[in-house]
Amino acid sequence: MMAASLMRMVLTVALLFGAAVSPALATDREALLTQPGVYGTFAAFQMDHDWWDLTGEARVIAVSEVKGLIEQFSQKIVIESYLLRGLSDHADLMFRVHAQALSDTQQFLTSLLGTRLGRHLVATSYLHGLTKPAVYAPGFSEPMKHALQSSTPEAGTKSYAIVIPIRKDAEWWALDQDTRTTLMQEHTQAALPYITTVKRKLYHSSGLDDFDFITYFETDKLDDFHGLIRALEQVKEYRHDRRFWHPTLLGTIRPLDDILELFAR
Amino acid sequence: MMAASLMRMVLTVALLFGAAVSPALATDREALLTQPGVYGTFAAFQMDHDWWDLTGEARVIAVSEVKGLIEQFSQKIVIESYLLRGLSDHADLMFRVHAQALSDTQQFLTSLLGTRLGRHLVATSYLHGLTKPAVYAPGFSEPMKHALQSSTPEAGTKSYAIVIPIRKDAEWWALDQDTRTTLMQEHTQAALPYITTVKRKLYHSSGLDDFDFITYFETDKLDDFHGLIRALEQVKEYRHDRRFWHPTLLGTIRPLDDILELFAR
Amino acid sequence: MMAASLMRMVLTVALLFGAAVSPALATDREALLTQPGVYGTFAAFQMDHDWWDLTGEARVIAVSEVKGLIEQFSQKIVIESYLLRGLSDHADLMFRVHAQALSDTQQFLTSLLGTRLGRHLVATSYLHGLTKPAVYAPGFSEPMKHALQSSTPEAGTKSYAIVIPIRKDAEWWALDQDTRTTLMQEHTQAALPYITTVKRKLYHSSGLDDFDFITYFETDKLDDFHGLIRALEQVKEYRHDRRFWHPTLLGTIRPLDDILELFAR
Amino acid sequence: MMAASLMRMVLTVALLFGAAVSPALATDREALLTQPGVYGTFAAFQMDHDWWDLTGEARVIAVSEVKGLIEQFSQKIVIESYLLRGLSDHADLMFRVHAQALSDTQQFLTSLLGTRLGRHLVATSYLHGLTKPAVYAPGFSEPMKHALQSSTPEAGTKSYAIVIPIRKDAEWWALDQDTRTTLMQEHTQAALPYITTVKRKLYHSSGLDDFDFITYFETDKLDDFHGLIRALEQVKEYRHDRRFWHPTLLGTIRPLDDILELFAR
Amino acid sequence: MMAASLMRMVLTVALLFGAAVSPALATDREALLTQPGVYGTFAAFQMDHDWWDLTGEARVIAVSEVKGLIEQFSQKIVIESYLLRGLSDHADLMFRVHAQALSDTQQFLTSLLGTRLGRHLVATSYLHGLTKPAVYAPGFSEPMKHALQSSTPEAGTKSYAIVIPIRKDAEWWALDQDTRTTLMQEHTQAALPYITTVKRKLYHSSGLDDFDFITYFETDKLDDFHGLIRALEQVKEYRHDRRFWHPTLLGTIRPLDDILELFAR
Repeated sequence: MMAASLMRMVLTVALLFGAAVSPALATDREALLTQPGVYGTFAAFQMDHDWWDLTGEARVIAVSEVKGLIEQFSQKIVIESYLLRGLSDHADLMFRVHAQALSDTQQFLTSLLGTRLGRHLVATSYLHGLTKPAVYAPGFSEPMKHALQSSTPEAGTKSYAIVIPIRKDAEWWALDQDTRTTLMQEHTQAALPYITTVKRKLYHSSGLDDFDFITYFETDKLDDFHGLIRALEQVKEYRHDRRFWHPTLLGTIRPLDDILELFAR
Repeated sequence: MMAASLMRMVLTVALLFGAAVSPALATDREALLTQPGVYGTFAAFQMDHDWWDLTGEARVIAVSEVKGLIEQFSQKIVIESYLLRGLSDHADLMFRVHAQALSDTQQFLTSLLGTRLGRHLVATSYLHGLTKPAVYAPGFSEPMKHALQSSTPEAGTKSYAIVIPIRKDAEWWALDQDTRTTLMQEHTQAALPYITTVKRKLYHSSGLDDFDFITYFETDKLDDFHGLIRALEQVKEYRHDRRFWHPTLLGTIRPLDDILELFAR
Repeated sequence: MMAASLMRMVLTVALLFGAAVSPALATDREALLTQPGVYGTFAAFQMDHDWWDLTGEARVIAVSEVKGLIEQFSQKIVIESYLLRGLSDHADLMFRVHAQALSDTQQFLTSLLGTRLGRHLVATSYLHGLTKPAVYAPGFSEPMKHALQSSTPEAGTKSYAIVIPIRKDAEWWALDQDTRTTLMQEHTQAALPYITTVKRKLYHSSGLDDFDFITYFETDKLDDFHGLIRALEQVKEYRHDRRFWHPTLLGTIRPLDDILELFAR
Repeated sequence: MMAASLMRMVLTVALLFGAAVSPALATDREALLTQPGVYGTFAAFQMDHDWWDLTGEARVIAVSEVKGLIEQFSQKIVIESYLLRGLSDHADLMFRVHAQALSDTQQFLTSLLGTRLGRHLVATSYLHGLTKPAVYAPGFSEPMKHALQSSTPEAGTKSYAIVIPIRKDAEWWALDQDTRTTLMQEHTQAALPYITTVKRKLYHSSGLDDFDFITYFETDKLDDFHGLIRALEQVKEYRHDRRFWHPTLLGTIRPLDDILELFAR
Repeated sequence: MMAASLMRMVLTVALLFGAAVSPALATDREALLTQPGVYGTFAAFQMDHDWWDLTGEARVIAVSEVKGLIEQFSQKIVIESYLLRGLSDHADLMFRVHAQALSDTQQFLTSLLGTRLGRHLVATSYLHGLTKPAVYAPGFSEPMKHALQSSTPEAGTKSYAIVIPIRKDAEWWALDQDTRTTLMQEHTQAALPYITTVKRKLYHSSGLDDFDFITYFETDKLDDFHGLIRALEQVKEYRHDRRFWHPTLLGTIRPLDDILELFAR
C-alpha cells in the first residue's frame, strides 16, 4: 500500500511538472558528471527536532519512501549524497544534483520535501551553478598546459567533500581577459602540487544564486586540501574574492542508505 | 457553507479597506502589466511545518478558499504565481502583484494571510517597486535606439523567473545624468545579445523597501540568463551596485492551481 | 468580570510604575504631536502563529482588552496605529507613541504585552527618538526660509506611513556646523517640490537606539514619496548616510479598531 | 517544601562549583561597585512564550524561587536588575552582575537558568568587562583634571540605564599613548557638561566578548544622555569606533521584585 | 537493558562508519594533544527548551547514555568538555575534540546527536583546525628564541577557556614570508609577559570552516588574558585581522560529569 501511494505521488508530481518519468531511458550519468552545460545544485538540509518524536517504525517507513523516490529520479538526474552532520553546524545532509535543466532538479527536491521525511527537512542552503568549458586554460602558457595535462588525479572514491561559494569583486570583472588569464595562471600554478590528491570542480553561479562561483572539492587528505587553500590565499587573484568561505559546507561522501540509516534508528 | 463564509470574509475585508470589490468592472490586465505608474510587489512565503499536520481534507478546503480569494481580487489587481520551493532555500512560493495602489495589494495579501492556508504562511520577503518610463533610453545614441527597437523578445510563456533587488551606491546618484546615460548605454549594449531570450522588467524601489531597484527576469534559457548577468558584471556601471544579488529569488512560473496542488496533497 | 479584571490589571501596572492614571487630566494631544522635547517610539510587532489557535470568542475578548487598555493610556500619551501586514515582511502592526517620558511609553507597552493578545505579539523593532527644534533651518538663506514658509502641506489624514531609520557616518559629525547647514540646505531644496504631498517628521535617536535619526513620512501619493527619496539620494549629504533604509517599515494608517478587527475574525 | 527544594538546589550548585556559599561573610558591595579589578557582566534575557501557559500559581512559585536564589548569591556578588521590556526589542530583563571572578557570575547565572523561571529565559546578550583605573586621565592637562574633580554627579537613584558596547578600529590601537590621551581629553571635554546628570561607567572587554569596551550610563534625563552621545559623535576619537551602538540596550532601573511581579501576574 | 541498547547503538555506528571501535588499543592521548597534524574541533551546543519537559528520571538516563558514549570514543579521540552556560549567550556546553581524522570526530558527534540527550542539542558553532609546526618561530631572532624557550607556562589545570576564530585579510597573505615573520616576532614579543599565566594553542583552519585560524586560550587569570589581547591589538599584525572576535566563546573547563549533572537535575 505504501509503495502504491508512493508511486501515485511520483506520478502526480510527474504530471504536475509536465515531465514523464521514463524508466526505460537510462540517464547518461557520465555525461551529466563531466560535460559542460549541466546544472549543479547543492542542497543542504537540517532535520527538524520533531522528526525524533515519530515512532521508530514511522521513521523506517519514511526513509524507505525517500529511497524509492531517489531511485525513480535517478533515471534522469544524478543525485549524490553527503553527511554534513557532525562537521557543519547548521546542516545535517546535502544532495549534489546534476541535471540538464533546473526544473528537473526542482521536481526532485519538491517531491523530496513532500515525502513524510521531507516534511521534517529545513532547507538551509541551495546553491546553483552551471558547468562550462575552462575559461582561462586556453590562454595559459605551454609549460602550464603541459603540467596540467601530465597531472592525473588519483582514481577512486574520496572521503571528504567541501563546498565554498565565492563572489568576485567588481574590480575583478573590470579587468581585461588577458590580465585575468595571467592571474588565473598564477592561481593554477599554486594549485598544481595538490592536483593529485584534491579533486576540484567549478560551477558558474552568477544570477542563479547570491554568488559568482561554487567551488567543490573532494579529497581523502584534508591536510592537502587545507594546504591548497592556503596556497590560493597567497596569489594576487585572491584579493578579488568577496564572501569567500561562507557558507563553508564540510562533509563526508556517503551512500544515501548510510545517511538515511542514521535518521531511521 | 464554505463559499458563504469565504464571501463573508471578502466582504468584511472590502468594508474594512473602504473599497468595494466590484465584479462588474473588469481589470485592465494588459495596462497593469505594461504601463508606467503601476506598483509591483514581490511577496515570497514559506509554508510552516504545522501545515502538514492538518488532515488532507482540511488542506483541500484551505486551498480552495485561497483559489476563491484570488479569483475575487483578480477583478482589480493582476496576481501571478511562482513556485520557489526546490530552487530558493527560504521560500516556497511567490506572488507578483501589479496594482494601481499598494493599498489594493495590501488588501489582497492581508486577506490571503487571514485564510486557513494563509495562517501557515511565513512572509520571508516583500519587495515593492514602481514602473516608470525608461529613464536613460531617450539619451541613447541613434544606433543603440535602433538596435533596441529591432530586437524582439520571443513570444510565449517562459519557464523560469528570477528576482534580484539592487541598491546603487551614493557615488552613482552623485553622477550627472549624462554620465549615467553613457554608463547605462554601455550596460544596455552588453545586454543586447540576450534580449531575444531573456525578458527583463525594472521596478523602482527607493523608499518603498530597502533597495533602489527590483530587476525581474523571465527566460526559458537559464544559461542565457547567466550569460546576461556575467556580461553586466563586466561593465563599469556594475561598480556602483551594492547588495546586488541578495536575496536572489529563483523559481518557475506556474499556474496557481499547480502550486496549491503541491500543498493540498 | 472581564472589565473588572482589566481594571485591576491597569491599576496594578499603575502602582508598579509609580504613576497614577488620572482620567480627569486630559492629555495635551496637540502639544505631544507638535512640540520639541517629546519622545517618539515606533514599536512594530508580529502576531505569532499560536494566536490563530485561540477560539474566535477568545480572540474577541483579547482584542477588547487591548482597546480598553489603549483608551486608559490615551489620557497621558498619544498612541497611533498602523497596519504593516501585507506591506512589510516581518511585522503586522505598529504603534507610534508620543510621550513626555519614555517610562510612560514603557508602561504602556509593558501593559500591552501583558494582555491576552500581547502574549502573542513578538516585538520586531523598537525605535526611539526625541523631537527637537530645527537644527539647520535658522542658518538657511532668506529665499529658502521663504520657500519653506510659503509651502503648506495638504491638510487631512494620509493613507500611507513610512519609517526609515538613519545613521550618519563619522565624517558627517566631523564637519563644522556651517558646512552641514550648506549641505542640509541643498537637501531641503531637493525636497521642496514634495512638501505639499509628503509630510515629514524627524526624530533624533543617537544613544536611544542603534540609529542617529528616525525619519517618518505620511502621504497619499506613494509615487511622490518615491520621487522625494530619489531626489534626496542625489544630493551630497546622502553620501554620509549609513544603514539608510533598513529596516524600512511601510504600512497604512488605520484606526486601531480596524487593525484589531483583522485579528479578531 | 519548596523552600527545602530550593535550598537543596543551591547547595548542589555550590558543591558543583566547588564554592561554599557562606551566608556569614557579608559581601563588600561598595568595593565591588567602585574598585578596579572587578568583573561586570550584563546579561539580557527574553521570556519565552511558553511561560504564559503556566498557571498563575506556578508562575508565583517560580518567581519566589528566583528571589530566594538571588538573595543567596547576594552574599558574594552584586546583582542589579533592569526592565528592558517595552524599550528594547529583543530583551525583557537584564542583570548587571559585579563579581571578583567570572566563575562566581557563571555560578549565579547557571543557577538562575536552572530554576523553573530560568527554563523560560532565552539569553539574548551577555557582555563581560573588567573595571580598571582610568587609563588616560593621569595624562590630562591640569585644568581638565580640575574640571573633572570639581564636577559632582547628582546623588540618588536614576531612572534609566543604557548599555552600549564598542569596538575600536585597528588604527586606534596603533596610535601612541600620547596621541590617544590627547584624543580622549577632547572626548572628555565634550562630555563635561553632562557629568552632573549622566553617570558613566566603563568596562574593558577585549577578549572577554566581541567588543573592546562596554559603556554603561544611568540618568534621569534621557535628553541629556542623548545630548552627551551627540557631543561625543563630534570629536575625532569617534572615527575609531566600530560597531558602535549595537546592541544598544535601553531600560529602566527597577527592584527585582517589581520586575518579577510583571511576570508573576 | 539500557546498557545493551547503548552498546548496540555504538556498534551500529561503528559499522556505519566502517571503523571498528577497538577497546584494546589505547589512544595516545598525549600525542593527540601535542603533536602537529592533528585535527581539533570546537563544537558548541545549546540545550533546547523541550529538554526540561522530560521527567527527571528520563534526563538521568539520557545523561548516563552520553557518559557511556564518550567513554567508548575516548579510546580513539581526546574529548574535553567546557561549560559555556552563564558566560556565552548562545551556547551551553562545548566539546574540544582532537583526532587523527575528522571522520572520527564526525562519528563521535553524530553518535552524540543521536542519543536521547543529543536530540535536544542545537549545534551553534563548529570550528575545525589543524595543528602544525610553528610557522614563523624558526625565523625569529636568537634573543626571541631564547626568551620563548626560557618561558615556562604554569603547570596544572586552568579554570577558563576562550576560543577566538580569526580571518586574515588578503593583504596579509600577499606579504612575503620575511615580512610576516617580522610582524609575528613583534606579535610574539607583545605576548611574552603573559606566557606564564595564559596558555595558547593555534589551529589552522583555512578551508575547513569560515576562518583562517582558531586561537584557543586557557588561564586562571582572566585579567592577564585580557591584558594579552590588549597587547596584541597594539601591534601592526593586528591590522590584518578580519572578523576577529566573533564568535568569542568563553567558558570554564569542567569534567563532563559536572556539566551533565547540571542538565540531569
